[in-house]
Amino acid sequence: MSDPLTQLKERLTKSTDLERIGRVLSWDHQTMMPPAGSGHRAEHLATLRRISHELLTDDETGRLLDELRPLEESLDADSDDGALIRLVRRDFEKAVRVPAELRAEMTRAGAHARPIWVKARAESSFEQFLPALERNVELRHEYVACFDNVAEPYDILLDDFEPHTTTAEVREIFAELKAELIPLIAELRNDDVDDSFLQGTFPIDRQESLAKEVVSLFGYRPDTWRLDPTEHPFASGAGVDDIRITTHYDPGSIKSLFSTMHEYGHGLYTHQLPRHLERLPTGGPCSLGIHESQSRLWENLVGRSRPFWRFFYSRAQEAFPERLRAVELDAFLAGINRVRPSLIRIRADEVTYGMHIVLRFELEQDIINGRVDLSDLPEVWNERMSEYLGVDVPDDAQGVLQDTHWASGLIGYFATYLLGTVMSVQIWQKALEDLPTVEEQIERGEFASLRKWLGEHVHRHGKKFSPQETLRRATGTTLDPKPYVAYLRTKYGAGVAA
Amino acid sequence: MSDPLTQLKERLTKSTDLERIGRVLSWDHQTMMPPAGSGHRAEHLATLRRISHELLTDDETGRLLDELRPLEESLDADSDDGALIRLVRRDFEKAVRVPAELRAEMTRAGAHARPIWVKARAESSFEQFLPALERNVELRHEYVACFDNVAEPYDILLDDFEPHTTTAEVREIFAELKAELIPLIAELRNDDVDDSFLQGTFPIDRQESLAKEVVSLFGYRPDTWRLDPTEHPFASGAGVDDIRITTHYDPGSIKSLFSTMHEYGHGLYTHQLPRHLERLPTGGPCSLGIHESQSRLWENLVGRSRPFWRFFYSRAQEAFPERLRAVELDAFLAGINRVRPSLIRIRADEVTYGMHIVLRFELEQDIINGRVDLSDLPEVWNERMSEYLGVDVPDDAQGVLQDTHWASGLIGYFATYLLGTVMSVQIWQKALEDLPTVEEQIERGEFASLRKWLGEHVHRHGKKFSPQETLRRATGTTLDPKPYVAYLRTKYGAGVAA
Repeated sequence: MSDPLTQLKERLTKSTDLERIGRVLSWDHQTMMPPAGSGHRAEHLATLRRISHELLTDDETGRLLDELRPLEESLDADSDDGALIRLVRRDFEKAVRVPAELRAEMTRAGAHARPIWVKARAESSFEQFLPALERNVELRHEYVACFDNVAEPYDILLDDFEPHTTTAEVREIFAELKAELIPLIAELRNDDVDDSFLQGTFPIDRQESLAKEVVSLFGYRPDTWRLDPTEHPFASGAGVDDIRITTHYDPGSIKSLFSTMHEYGHGLYTHQLPRHLERLPTGGPCSLGIHESQSRLWENLVGRSRPFWRFFYSRAQEAFPERLRAVELDAFLAGINRVRPSLIRIRADEVTYGMHIVLRFELEQDIINGRVDLSDLPEVWNERMSEYLGVDVPDDAQGVLQDTHWASGLIGYFATYLLGTVMSVQIWQKALEDLPTVEEQIERGEFASLRKWLGEHVHRHGKKFSPQETLRRATGTTLDPKPYVAYLRTKYGAGVAA
Repeated sequence: MSDPLTQLKERLTKSTDLERIGRVLSWDHQTMMPPAGSGHRAEHLATLRRISHELLTDDETGRLLDELRPLEESLDADSDDGALIRLVRRDFEKAVRVPAELRAEMTRAGAHARPIWVKARAESSFEQFLPALERNVELRHEYVACFDNVAEPYDILLDDFEPHTTTAEVREIFAELKAELIPLIAELRNDDVDDSFLQGTFPIDRQESLAKEVVSLFGYRPDTWRLDPTEHPFASGAGVDDIRITTHYDPGSIKSLFSTMHEYGHGLYTHQLPRHLERLPTGGPCSLGIHESQSRLWENLVGRSRPFWRFFYSRAQEAFPERLRAVELDAFLAGINRVRPSLIRIRADEVTYGMHIVLRFELEQDIINGRVDLSDLPEVWNERMSEYLGVDVPDDAQGVLQDTHWASGLIGYFATYLLGTVMSVQIWQKALEDLPTVEEQIERGEFASLRKWLGEHVHRHGKKFSPQETLRRATGTTLDPKPYVAYLRTKYGAGVAA
């Protein structure tokens, strides 16, 4: 019989493999699967999750963790094994409280609600979606009720997406952001900027080759990566050597370029996760917030920057001469960085984006704490959109029904988008400090030292530490919205074209 | 606690799901995966297999099977539950004898040997391949040694691919075939037939659309099926509603058309397996022989027949006017049915194909029984090719190294190709009896009643019965090479063009 740590690792290798396999199946689901296969797929994913959950919550896991307590205490907290035992103990203690049947029903109800939401959104009918949403919320209440000594119920949900992060902490950061962003939006909005050249005809084959060209420049390599078209862009893959990103090509706009850069950032993160921990939970991504910091960094800090476009703009003009030949670089930069409050989160600019998240974060707490009746959600949504962004919501499709998260039962997820955005600026500024010539390199189309820096300072920690600790190791600081606000003020205050 | 049958089914649903997931991963491996992903993929497939094996061989499975003995005896042998318990008992009794580590090592050694074989074949160097082959054979000896009371060692290997079928039975059938085929080949070979129009330039895009047209005619539907290009054609998928076939397009030949029809036959079989047994072992395919009977039926009995080409030839001429415009239907039929002994199994015509299999079947027994030294294989191979088919093997790449099976450790597999071919004719003749107008339907491009007949008489049994019993239920007869030989004699003896 092998030692308890080896036995624990054997179990974890299995459950990690099953989780990675699930990611390939999800990718396949959204890119390749014949539509009729969705019935099998739901069952197969549920089976993978059930086996994983059983491997984690089995009495034997508990027994091994008990046996490993002295070893854990003797190990350096930085060590791979110390971090592993600590992470698994936390996951185990959370998972054993949740009955397998509740876990399965949460997955099932989300899968059931998703097509209902698709139809409800298409018909802009919140009423159609309401019963499915009620079921999802009810199950989250049951889930929260599995835990004792909870400061606030929403903490339990948030922790599933951003571990070690409390509602109170996020509330404080978001309150600070809100106080800054509302006046900043009023100050920086520039409705007069002409961005009409970003609409028109952008043939998909040329978008596709330009997107490939950008990510190849960034560091996409065809022996390790894939890029495929999908309805909703995402990043997935089977492990560090099998990275799959997707993008959506709209023939009437070039926004696919920015969403491809975004997914590249996610992809690079998973590509540079610690290879020697590949088949253990510590080898996975740290949190959704850290994940998002990487995608936003490549999309915004690199992809909407002057240095990058000084290098790349001529290529975009060559690809779309009909639209861009007559547009100067300054005008193009102003266009892709235009600030204007709008209805849809995923199309929001860098300055207004935060308020979309603050709204959802507040609303989710109201939902979970029973401060808002679900049937009143559209009304409340529309009021706050008017208050925070000054826009009138014409219908539910462009309002409360726009995002898929609540349909899948993902409550507690949205905050990570803004946490990641905030962290992306903290990480970027540390990278600029450590690599003083990185912007000149980007202007020459060189990204290797940025990739390497991110790998060494962020990616290599995998899930060994909490998001805050990971951020601290990368930047020397903890979550702080000030650099983000200062960045917005500097970039947009001077006028992007300056 | 649920009853033992329900508990058994829960375990089996898991292992069946894992097996189906493995099929999607294998498909992905060969069609979509970035090449660097093969490391992860090997580990992930091994994990799926390990968990499946553990679920099957667990003491708990044995206990449930013991408890279920009285129920099994009380159930009708035809019943779904009776068939399930019988099948699982047999699988369990075989699997528990094999240590998990040996099972894993067999998989690992096969995965290790495959790239060695690819290189050895490319360089036509049997010597390079020999150590890997020796390891595979050694492991098969260890595997066979796990069983007692074995009439012949080769039985154990054959049974993994064609259950309930002994070496002695196959030897008898093949001896009869051999005695018929050798003179028949001499009699029917028609080297003078002109088939030069089958070589030349066949643009891949047109091959692709013609292949899609053929299988759409047969019954391929895009909501349930996929057709993708690969190096080596195969059929796979996640279940009855997710069928994936692949084909290889050679720009210099139209043989992709026949391999696509072949894979369609495999795909239709899995598409029409019993839906209500979908997530149990009894809902899988019966055996490789039965599987092959379905692919050969569509490829040869339908796809190389006069009725089909009376309907479809004008379409092929439209697709490839440069090559086929001037070729009459009779000449085309003679060309695609030309009989000529040749070196490569997968390119062999219907008449000579059998001898390629007889040779491999005999050689595998010699290997397992130690009657041939592995280092002498090329020599023995070449002698027998000369004896059986009258051809001189110029090099190992076109000889003993041509097939991938032994590299992957698949010894005992080849026989199923010829068993399936023999059964395809038995099944076809029964279909013709039951559906007297089926050839007229095919001449009108109608395949629905043939599909339905195959579904009702062959596919719907899944793996409930042995291959022989499945054949008996479909045709009223058991394995018999006579109809196959008579078919060859009739089709080719009269001259195909007649």
